[in-house]
Amino acid sequence: MNVVELIRKKRDGEALTEAEFRFLISGYVDGHVPEYQMSAFLMACFFRGMTKEEILTFTKLMLFSGEVVDLSEIPGIKVDKHSTGGVGDKVSLLLAPIVAACGVPVPMISGRGLGHTGGTLDKLESIPGFRTNLSVAEYKKVINDIGLVMIGQTKEIAPADKKMYALRDVTATVECIPLIAGSIMSKKLAEGIDALVLDVKTGRGAFMQTEEKAIELAQTLVEIGNGFGKQTIGFVTDMNQPLGSAIGNWLEVVESVECLRRNRGNNDESKDLMDVTLLLSGAMVFLGKKAKSIHEGIERCREVVSSKKAYQKFLQLVHMQGGDASSIENLEKYPIPVLSLDVKTSEKGFVGAIDSLELGLAGIALGAGRQRIDDTIDPKAGIVLRKKVGDRVEPGEILAILYTDRDQEASAARDRISKAFKIVSNKPTPQPLIKYIVDREGVKAWR
Amino acid sequence: MNVVELIRKKRDGEALTEAEFRFLISGYVDGHVPEYQMSAFLMACFFRGMTKEEILTFTKLMLFSGEVVDLSEIPGIKVDKHSTGGVGDKVSLLLAPIVAACGVPVPMISGRGLGHTGGTLDKLESIPGFRTNLSVAEYKKVINDIGLVMIGQTKEIAPADKKMYALRDVTATVECIPLIAGSIMSKKLAEGIDALVLDVKTGRGAFMQTEEKAIELAQTLVEIGNGFGKQTIGFVTDMNQPLGSAIGNWLEVVESVECLRRNRGNNDESKDLMDVTLLLSGAMVFLGKKAKSIHEGIERCREVVSSKKAYQKFLQLVHMQGGDASSIENLEKYPIPVLSLDVKTSEKGFVGAIDSLELGLAGIALGAGRQRIDDTIDPKAGIVLRKKVGDRVEPGEILAILYTDRDQEASAARDRISKAFKIVSNKPTPQPLIKYIVDREGVKAWR
Repeated sequence: MNVVELIRKKRDGEALTEAEFRFLISGYVDGHVPEYQMSAFLMACFFRGMTKEEILTFTKLMLFSGEVVDLSEIPGIKVDKHSTGGVGDKVSLLLAPIVAACGVPVPMISGRGLGHTGGTLDKLESIPGFRTNLSVAEYKKVINDIGLVMIGQTKEIAPADKKMYALRDVTATVECIPLIAGSIMSKKLAEGIDALVLDVKTGRGAFMQTEEKAIELAQTLVEIGNGFGKQTIGFVTDMNQPLGSAIGNWLEVVESVECLRRNRGNNDESKDLMDVTLLLSGAMVFLGKKAKSIHEGIERCREVVSSKKAYQKFLQLVHMQGGDASSIENLEKYPIPVLSLDVKTSEKGFVGAIDSLELGLAGIALGAGRQRIDDTIDPKAGIVLRKKVGDRVEPGEILAILYTDRDQEASAARDRISKAFKIVSNKPTPQPLIKYIVDREGVKAWR
Repeated sequence: MNVVELIRKKRDGEALTEAEFRFLISGYVDGHVPEYQMSAFLMACFFRGMTKEEILTFTKLMLFSGEVVDLSEIPGIKVDKHSTGGVGDKVSLLLAPIVAACGVPVPMISGRGLGHTGGTLDKLESIPGFRTNLSVAEYKKVINDIGLVMIGQTKEIAPADKKMYALRDVTATVECIPLIAGSIMSKKLAEGIDALVLDVKTGRGAFMQTEEKAIELAQTLVEIGNGFGKQTIGFVTDMNQPLGSAIGNWLEVVESVECLRRNRGNNDESKDLMDVTLLLSGAMVFLGKKAKSIHEGIERCREVVSSKKAYQKFLQLVHMQGGDASSIENLEKYPIPVLSLDVKTSEKGFVGAIDSLELGLAGIALGAGRQRIDDTIDPKAGIVLRKKVGDRVEPGEILAILYTDRDQEASAARDRISKAFKIVSNKPTPQPLIKYIVDREGVKAWR
């Protein structure tokens, strides 16, 4: 078998066999297939796509390029969630303890933030002492003891994906649904899950900017999940404004903790965050057979938030993974950024839209994110929104507050944040936050 | 400027600016743009193509990535020929001395054979002592002294193309007209030419397998040439059988010498070779203003062959470039391969087609070509055809003779050569060898 011939085959629109994919992927992992051949192949995939069969084969080979964790000794139906990521999306921090508190084990392997979207690992690591680099043995122990665990991708998990993702990032081959789907699912299937809930974001600031693309990705992910015998439900949700109020690692932990303590999340700027969290959690509880429907699952989740069982579960998680639980119980003791600056409006009207992409980029400038994988993050930095889409504003009112140690960046970031708020004269018609549900029966509008 | 953004731009079908191409190409030459980004860009070019303006810009930047030889001190209109290459194509060996003998200077920089097609350099180097690696100063001296010179691409000529071609070869991005055209023309324009004749082959065994693609490439090449102020004429010629009788380096020198001596090339297996040679030579003589039309140019060329002036010019060239002219004058003194084997037919009928690709591949197996750039070539090895398309055959007649030192390969090669001859029961209708002429006025059938 010859790599050039395989690139040519994909380039000319033919489907590759399992043996051909194996030759390419194992050769890539062991270094026999150089980066420059793989990047040409990936670009050919961008243009030619893959058949359903190819996607399953590709995912399987990425999955078995590394270790597949066996959690069969842990009782219960293990369920995880994956989101395509968005600005201010701290759902995982809330959802994992909520679902675990309902009695469904949650083994979660997450990524770091890159570009304008944040990463769950960076948020967790803003908690003093919290360790995300557990060994597989520790991973199993934590989920066995407390019913949830949240770690980073280890080098044993899907190494082919790890290497390929880094290459895609620098060769403009990220935005390709078969490659995205294979990458996501190879990592998720390696965790040892029995079922999976997916949140595919759509809109500006999301990975899939159009609804069609988001639905296509959700369908592909659901097909792969079911193809591997894991019951999978996907949702397409709106990302036309950041989720909740906080953008920035520690600020998002604070918002999550306040929601779990029920001090936030009802009729304030965190309401959309709680709505998405309860939906996805409810679906997980349904898949974990602790509720008869998604709606019943949502009710179970509301209960464990109300009873603070979910908050207790979160404290337990922090403690089990080496974090300082007292920093969660006493949020006010955390270091304070050098600078906090109000972002005000000079206009009168209603917030019509908030550009998540712009806020994500402003957050990076303030120190909350990284442009390159080796950039360091300032966990304290970020933005807290005081207005969301639909809110009335008067000239001089505060739209958001920014936090940073980088005083040279503050003024430009303030302007950028201000411009991200589109003020309109008439109150905008509310748009549904949850758009579609995708399962093995097909795509339906969520009601 | 950011390489990933430039790849994305091309991927999404946008045209790149000159500054963007410069950033990419100069970065690639100096190593700032890694191979894996360039290969993704090249694959995006394969799918998206380039605008006419982009092709000119791309060619210009490839050209000026290296030295552009200035031959303005040499009197006369300097004209060269380029062919997209074919099996048995030794036209350059004949044409350069013919055109020079007509008084038109020919500065020729050629390549090596790779894959199933041969390279002029390898053919010349089969002549004992012949040096193709002249310095630019020697190059100028030889053309000044004798009116022609034949060398290899030096490292000073279009280094961007040299690096990029090697990458395209291993990433299935060769077959892309803008990239092919830029590669060819950047090298040809660097030679110091004033005008150019192109031979684009079509058919099985040719680079452009369909006529449409061959015409498209010819048009692109002619546009680039004229865009750089060099009068350019292209021809689309048939490659549905090897050109002439010999395939293999020294064997092709022998055939060329015999044609220049007028011992071959009239009504024998070398007729098609002479027809193409005289056409292209005639067009060069016309462009060099030593004839008023291509047809008059062809007549001038016939004369210098008849008078042996072209043969004398060839001997002069061999001598000037360090070759042993006595080996040309005494062809029979050359070393003889260990093995010569007749390839016979068991069928009765007419030769309907001869698969050039298969013969080229059989030639490689016998030692006449290279599969990898660092393979060594046996100059003695190859195939001599005794039958061409349209010839009548009887069972037991010899179709071809193979020559090799590799006795283990001989039997498989014999079968391969035998199968390459398609024997049909009715005499096939002759197809025109010269199909189209392409110049600034457009594409016309050649009459």
